[in-house]
Amino acid sequence: MNIKSKFSDKVKDMEGSAIRATFKLLANPDIISFAGGAPAKELFPKAELAEIAKDVLKENGEVALQYGITEGYEPLRKWVTDRISKTGNVTDNDNVIIVSGGQQGIDLAAKSLLNPGDGVVCEEPSFIGGLNCFRSYNAEIYGVEVENDGINMDKLEQLLKEHSNIKVLYTIATFQNPSGITMSLEKRKKLLEIADKYDIIIFEDNPYGELRFAGEDIPTIKSLDTEGRVAYFGSFSKILSPGLRLGFVSADADLIERMVICKQVQDVHTNVLSQMIAYEFVTRYDIDAHIKKLCESYGKRAKLMMDCMDKYFPKCVTHTNPEGGLFLFCTMPEQYDTREIMDMAVKKNIAFVPGATTMVDDKKKCSTFRMNYSASNEEQIERGIKILGELLCEITGDTPR
Amino acid sequence: MNIKSKFSDKVKDMEGSAIRATFKLLANPDIISFAGGAPAKELFPKAELAEIAKDVLKENGEVALQYGITEGYEPLRKWVTDRISKTGNVTDNDNVIIVSGGQQGIDLAAKSLLNPGDGVVCEEPSFIGGLNCFRSYNAEIYGVEVENDGINMDKLEQLLKEHSNIKVLYTIATFQNPSGITMSLEKRKKLLEIADKYDIIIFEDNPYGELRFAGEDIPTIKSLDTEGRVAYFGSFSKILSPGLRLGFVSADADLIERMVICKQVQDVHTNVLSQMIAYEFVTRYDIDAHIKKLCESYGKRAKLMMDCMDKYFPKCVTHTNPEGGLFLFCTMPEQYDTREIMDMAVKKNIAFVPGATTMVDDKKKCSTFRMNYSASNEEQIERGIKILGELLCEITGDTPR
Repeated sequence: MNIKSKFSDKVKDMEGSAIRATFKLLANPDIISFAGGAPAKELFPKAELAEIAKDVLKENGEVALQYGITEGYEPLRKWVTDRISKTGNVTDNDNVIIVSGGQQGIDLAAKSLLNPGDGVVCEEPSFIGGLNCFRSYNAEIYGVEVENDGINMDKLEQLLKEHSNIKVLYTIATFQNPSGITMSLEKRKKLLEIADKYDIIIFEDNPYGELRFAGEDIPTIKSLDTEGRVAYFGSFSKILSPGLRLGFVSADADLIERMVICKQVQDVHTNVLSQMIAYEFVTRYDIDAHIKKLCESYGKRAKLMMDCMDKYFPKCVTHTNPEGGLFLFCTMPEQYDTREIMDMAVKKNIAFVPGATTMVDDKKKCSTFRMNYSASNEEQIERGIKILGELLCEITGDTPR
Repeated sequence: MNIKSKFSDKVKDMEGSAIRATFKLLANPDIISFAGGAPAKELFPKAELAEIAKDVLKENGEVALQYGITEGYEPLRKWVTDRISKTGNVTDNDNVIIVSGGQQGIDLAAKSLLNPGDGVVCEEPSFIGGLNCFRSYNAEIYGVEVENDGINMDKLEQLLKEHSNIKVLYTIATFQNPSGITMSLEKRKKLLEIADKYDIIIFEDNPYGELRFAGEDIPTIKSLDTEGRVAYFGSFSKILSPGLRLGFVSADADLIERMVICKQVQDVHTNVLSQMIAYEFVTRYDIDAHIKKLCESYGKRAKLMMDCMDKYFPKCVTHTNPEGGLFLFCTMPEQYDTREIMDMAVKKNIAFVPGATTMVDDKKKCSTFRMNYSASNEEQIERGIKILGELLCEITGDTPR
């Protein structure tokens, strides 16, 4: 049969994540990939987790291996609620659900809220997993430019004036993916004002917020919200392990209730063993000390990558200067298409994410690219940036400063 | 803000799974629940899995804890493909994806294929997780009666003649949930003929197929399909552990490709640690011997439950006679509504699933109920069926035979 003729309108034209596609490159051991968004694998507390997993299964295997509650393993859910309460990320009207990674939180919230044709404003550039999720519900996506201190608020308000179908704004306000940019406190407050005025919901995706290695913490948008219009997405992927697929959402209890119903039909509940392992880890060990270790390492790698870029990249290629998170974002002169440059880089065994994939219109030529520094060691960063810098000099005919 | 006014049409009227709701009853240690669909927790190979988890994390933690491939952990995917190939459940045009439990397979296939208003034929009664999943995509659901040897084929053909919007038929052909009924070989062949004639896709959900404790195996519909119109859903939940959230789908490669894209935005990939644990279990141990042990236990429990029903239930309440799986299905005289009877039973600390929740129109009065025998031990089965039998005698004024 011709099964293609049966595909739903939602998915028939969707393309897979270009970032996921780069995973295949990693099969080649010679490649230095700055394309992923993975945490440093050598910093996983694997010996500790091995002991914990054994203990959990031996002593509590009948719980870990059995069906669980859709809302999440209660001790972990309580721990998450307590932790995010301290920073104002839960209000009295809120509830918390444990999800199979932060991505699932976005998906469940999108499914609960979006009809085909509903509008979602996304930062430009934005996270491809967010963009593709909204696309998969046939939402209309509007891009709004990210400046050095976050979204351009005038342009956002203009969009909201022009398009009454907009229901949701999606932001990674802290150490944004892909730009590494953090939205200022002033803009966070302004964003809430605008959201109130136009009655839209804010999705605040914050998987990187705890990974600050420079500067001062800024309150989350969620903690400033008095109207209950922020759905807050957190994750264990960057502070413990992505392979365990654990995230959480804090939002208005009525929205969480819809998300629970959607999760029942999507994967019933989050992996119980993973939830118990994570809970046991945060109980036996000091998670903040572990996060501090990650921040120190990522701070060093980010600095090294920027130093190497300043040394080897041509002057005409600029980069952002993140204070945390996993990414920095480079901009070439407008005439270049970084998809073409990616093909040339891969021939030299270097990979990155071309900026086009982070844009609402991902077919358009784009001269930016995303670089990840968390998943490569110092030797790889030095060697990789040197090779890439030489290639970029050759292409642009420019020299380092 | 009034967030309820923002809910999507897909989910605003959805109700949570009544079966999941009964989980809350289990918090009461005095209750005997025949309501769930859980495997016997005392048969989980927890000591073996504890050793395996420790070894996997210690020796291969950098893989187990890191991001993985959306299609699945390759050694497990290959193992699944080999295993289901032997029974004809993979064809040359097919591909296999590992999913976060069988339910996710159904969800991803539904999302890939269903536009709002597309028709899905479901068995009546059927699995609430399937029904709710199709509802969540605003599909139009048509019920077709299940007879003692499976779907009534005349009524199915009638439905297909009358409704040109039907795209998918969803069946649990073997040890059906909730009825325990198995579709005959003759009807499986007839179903494929009808599907060819009306060009529909068959979802064959087979989580219980390996749990046969009586009678002879019948080929899956998938193994009889020469047109590539069967998507086949399998699961580790009933043969190893539901808490690990592992299932798989074998279907036309083009459909699997769409499902991979949907999975990328839904949960990125299936829990890597779980996949590695499962793979290591099937490599180190004899999974068929383990399944045999489960079958022996479930066969005993099913027989005991039926014997007790025959002894304590009033003559006017009949039950199916399953050859495998986890459920048997009871029918009371038409005038009773088993939702009301469930409320009375819960007061006596007994729970089951009222039949209404397994029907397309779940608001209608329904005189059937589903009983699970895998999750209760022999003492609980004897005691619970006696209490329930006495209640049913009291309600109906009838006596046991």
